[in-house]
Amino acid sequence: MASGMTISLDELTQRFGGDVMGKGAHRVGGLAPLDKAGPDQISFLANQKYLVQVESTRAGAMLISPADLDKLTRRDGINFIVTPNPYAYFARVAQAFIDLAAPKVTPGVHPSAYVDPAAKVAASAVIGPHVTVEAGAVVGERVKLDAGVSVGRGVKLGDDVHLYPNVTVYHGCKLGARVIVHAGAVIGADGFGFAPDFVGEGEARAGTWVKIPQVGAVDIADDVEIGANTTIDRGAMVDTVIEESVKIDNLVQIGHNCRIGAYTVIAGCAGIAGSTNIGKHCMIGGAVGIAGHVTLADYVIVTAQSGVSKSLTKPGIYTSAFPTMPHADWNRSAALYRNLDKLRERIKSLETALADRDADADDKA
Amino acid sequence: MASGMTISLDELTQRFGGDVMGKGAHRVGGLAPLDKAGPDQISFLANQKYLVQVESTRAGAMLISPADLDKLTRRDGINFIVTPNPYAYFARVAQAFIDLAAPKVTPGVHPSAYVDPAAKVAASAVIGPHVTVEAGAVVGERVKLDAGVSVGRGVKLGDDVHLYPNVTVYHGCKLGARVIVHAGAVIGADGFGFAPDFVGEGEARAGTWVKIPQVGAVDIADDVEIGANTTIDRGAMVDTVIEESVKIDNLVQIGHNCRIGAYTVIAGCAGIAGSTNIGKHCMIGGAVGIAGHVTLADYVIVTAQSGVSKSLTKPGIYTSAFPTMPHADWNRSAALYRNLDKLRERIKSLETALADRDADADDKA
Amino acid sequence: MASGMTISLDELTQRFGGDVMGKGAHRVGGLAPLDKAGPDQISFLANQKYLVQVESTRAGAMLISPADLDKLTRRDGINFIVTPNPYAYFARVAQAFIDLAAPKVTPGVHPSAYVDPAAKVAASAVIGPHVTVEAGAVVGERVKLDAGVSVGRGVKLGDDVHLYPNVTVYHGCKLGARVIVHAGAVIGADGFGFAPDFVGEGEARAGTWVKIPQVGAVDIADDVEIGANTTIDRGAMVDTVIEESVKIDNLVQIGHNCRIGAYTVIAGCAGIAGSTNIGKHCMIGGAVGIAGHVTLADYVIVTAQSGVSKSLTKPGIYTSAFPTMPHADWNRSAALYRNLDKLRERIKSLETALADRDADADDKA
Repeated sequence: MASGMTISLDELTQRFGGDVMGKGAHRVGGLAPLDKAGPDQISFLANQKYLVQVESTRAGAMLISPADLDKLTRRDGINFIVTPNPYAYFARVAQAFIDLAAPKVTPGVHPSAYVDPAAKVAASAVIGPHVTVEAGAVVGERVKLDAGVSVGRGVKLGDDVHLYPNVTVYHGCKLGARVIVHAGAVIGADGFGFAPDFVGEGEARAGTWVKIPQVGAVDIADDVEIGANTTIDRGAMVDTVIEESVKIDNLVQIGHNCRIGAYTVIAGCAGIAGSTNIGKHCMIGGAVGIAGHVTLADYVIVTAQSGVSKSLTKPGIYTSAFPTMPHADWNRSAALYRNLDKLRERIKSLETALADRDADADDKA
Repeated sequence: MASGMTISLDELTQRFGGDVMGKGAHRVGGLAPLDKAGPDQISFLANQKYLVQVESTRAGAMLISPADLDKLTRRDGINFIVTPNPYAYFARVAQAFIDLAAPKVTPGVHPSAYVDPAAKVAASAVIGPHVTVEAGAVVGERVKLDAGVSVGRGVKLGDDVHLYPNVTVYHGCKLGARVIVHAGAVIGADGFGFAPDFVGEGEARAGTWVKIPQVGAVDIADDVEIGANTTIDRGAMVDTVIEESVKIDNLVQIGHNCRIGAYTVIAGCAGIAGSTNIGKHCMIGGAVGIAGHVTLADYVIVTAQSGVSKSLTKPGIYTSAFPTMPHADWNRSAALYRNLDKLRERIKSLETALADRDADADDKA
Repeated sequence: MASGMTISLDELTQRFGGDVMGKGAHRVGGLAPLDKAGPDQISFLANQKYLVQVESTRAGAMLISPADLDKLTRRDGINFIVTPNPYAYFARVAQAFIDLAAPKVTPGVHPSAYVDPAAKVAASAVIGPHVTVEAGAVVGERVKLDAGVSVGRGVKLGDDVHLYPNVTVYHGCKLGARVIVHAGAVIGADGFGFAPDFVGEGEARAGTWVKIPQVGAVDIADDVEIGANTTIDRGAMVDTVIEESVKIDNLVQIGHNCRIGAYTVIAGCAGIAGSTNIGKHCMIGGAVGIAGHVTLADYVIVTAQSGVSKSLTKPGIYTSAFPTMPHADWNRSAALYRNLDKLRERIKSLETALADRDADADDKA
């Protein structure tokens, strides 16, 4: 926030809601934590453990929930914006300051970019150096294509889409409004489909894999964000679909024909095999693997590194990963795990022996 | 298949084999499932469960196996191509229709591309926008280099290679005929090799990692397909080798000096450490990890998310991953797993107690 | 080493240390293993098992440790460089030969590159085809930016940095001297942070995810190497920090706000969630997952595919991954694992039964 630009609390509530308690004309020029903020900055309270800092803060303004406001022992000298969700409000205000401070970019096509004459690019779009936009593509208002981006034939990019450097979008894919794709991500590569055409077995085996053409595309709804170097494959016959406001982290793989439900978040390094359906509002942890052709209900949470091999039909939290143990301890348990059936047999033998003895005792009695 | 172009069944059997049963002159303009196909489309039966759809299909033509043909109760109005593998045949026909409908590309080098004067590019190749081809590279007939591709010094690309946008091939690597590499993949980056040159321990430790130059390259045989953002490292002293018709999915990592046997398929997010040898016709599941310096026999199948730490010398299916359970159930089992040795000791105590009792009883008797 | 250039042993010890035993003026033109080296090549002994090859080697020179030198039964005709770490010495010599043989590159900016007038590029830097360097960036001496690299606003690149093709560095990030980044890696993409702003549950749920602006950057110290298609996210408020001489393999994900301690190595496909602190001299195995907000002590080793969910406060080796078993064996153990509590109950019943009997026996006695 090196910029000298400021916003008044009234302007903030006009844009983002909430109620001012104090001077609405108070102007702030940036955000800061409670213990660092000064009179011309706005701070926020999103976690009970920082409540105590309010007593000594020098912040001129503060975002707070109605419940937390009631708990305050000191209010003097602070102008509040009261909002049910100060953390989300903070995020919105932070973005507003970034937008204020951002260098102005001039719309237009960089001289080093290549835009096919049969593509349609909005005059408000910013097409960066070394970008390629192929024939039939449609690029919406205020779209930003960074250096080295490749937009294939017939791709549709909604308004305010931002593709970071070196993103590739294959032919025929569709991105909704405000979609953000981070650098190196690949949208619409061929799904992994090959028909085996082999005869014989072992040394006599002959033939090959025959590529199954992938004629679907990828259809991404509004407000989706996709992480760096993530890959989302095009469908085989139908489209792969990412519904609105899905958030996908870096290095995630989504196979062909998948559908990811609205508002679902997928953490880094997760992999989802083909033709899988994930519900709305799910949370998929880091490095989770999900098999192909399964369905996850809405509100399913899968914890990090777990593996889903069957459909999960009810909301809830699912797990299949172990936390680390010291190596020797792990190996001791793992050796027993490999021979769990022997432990079970020993238990069975004990049960039989005891039953035999009971029978003997009964006989004697 | 918006194109008005059609192919006769005779033409198809001439190109792809199989026998026509019905009118060989019947022309089809596209593929469709049995329940959607019309008289000018060709359908296929690759799965018994769709057998019933044949009775009501409007398809003018159909791919079928001899065995399934015998099971049909209705044949009238349908022209058949009889082939042992209708699914692979379908894939070939689908590709033929795509080729028919594809926009014609003009061979040549895009004005924005940079081709070093000391590179050799076939006149039939299509070099896209912002492509770089460095000195000594040899680019074969009909090769297609999409936007932003980087081909290093001395790289050899066989005929009909297709590199999708933003692929990087490092110096000295070799790709056989018809190799397809999807966007963002990196072929021939340095293997991960560093010699420790440290003295002392703990706080007194001094020194550094010394990079071991990677002077091998990557040698990829004919008909290999490589997924988006996959990485295959160059060898340290010898080449990393990918044999013919290997199919590799997205976001796969293959370490230096590996050899992947012909026809092996590797699913997304798998990682193979250095100097490992995978046999022919293997199937490596998604997110599988394979340690370095191990060998997998031909026809080994490793299921998704499993970890291979030792050589697998016999064909077969191998596994080491759990499916998810509800979180609480998992935690209950995991807590017991961490203390499996205690369960074993309790079993041992029981066995000892029972044996003691038997000894006592014997004594008394 | 096709080049005719040679180096004398004296020159090598001047550059890399060690003591010549034999003729310091002896010139070598390349490296080779003991069994393949000729009189004008230098070999090395870094592993006891090759000791026997010294007897028959034709190598004119050899790198050896003082301890191994004592074990030699033959020394005639070989000129030695004696050094405590022949393997690290070999790596340095190998690099020297590569540098000798490397094609001379002319400093300067390729005509197809775009360098913003407000960027500062050292005259000794080599800016390749289709590179983008944005305003405010500072590019150090002898930096090499390969084809398609994108360097964002205000990025600082230290001397001798090498960015391979299609690397993206987002605005404001800083790379120290001699940092190597392999193709397709992305430095400084937005961390994965969204504030939930939803009200209601189930079907009534409304609202959205609000993006939390990521205003930190990535700060990478000297001598770091980063693998192909690896992603390192920028911090939310503070910088993500990679300390000196960290070595990171391909397809690794490092979340926002992380700090990776000096000399730590991270193998391929590992994923580290946000705000995690890894100590110095750690070794993180392939495909390891580390949760967010945890701390690893110095000298921690995590074996491949393990999952770290809590802080590891002591140096040592940690594990949580199983090696594969034949599929049927695995399934048998896994089924018992899922019902471990039942085994425990059976043990408990046995213990109770035995105790009851003992009580009965006591009563009778």
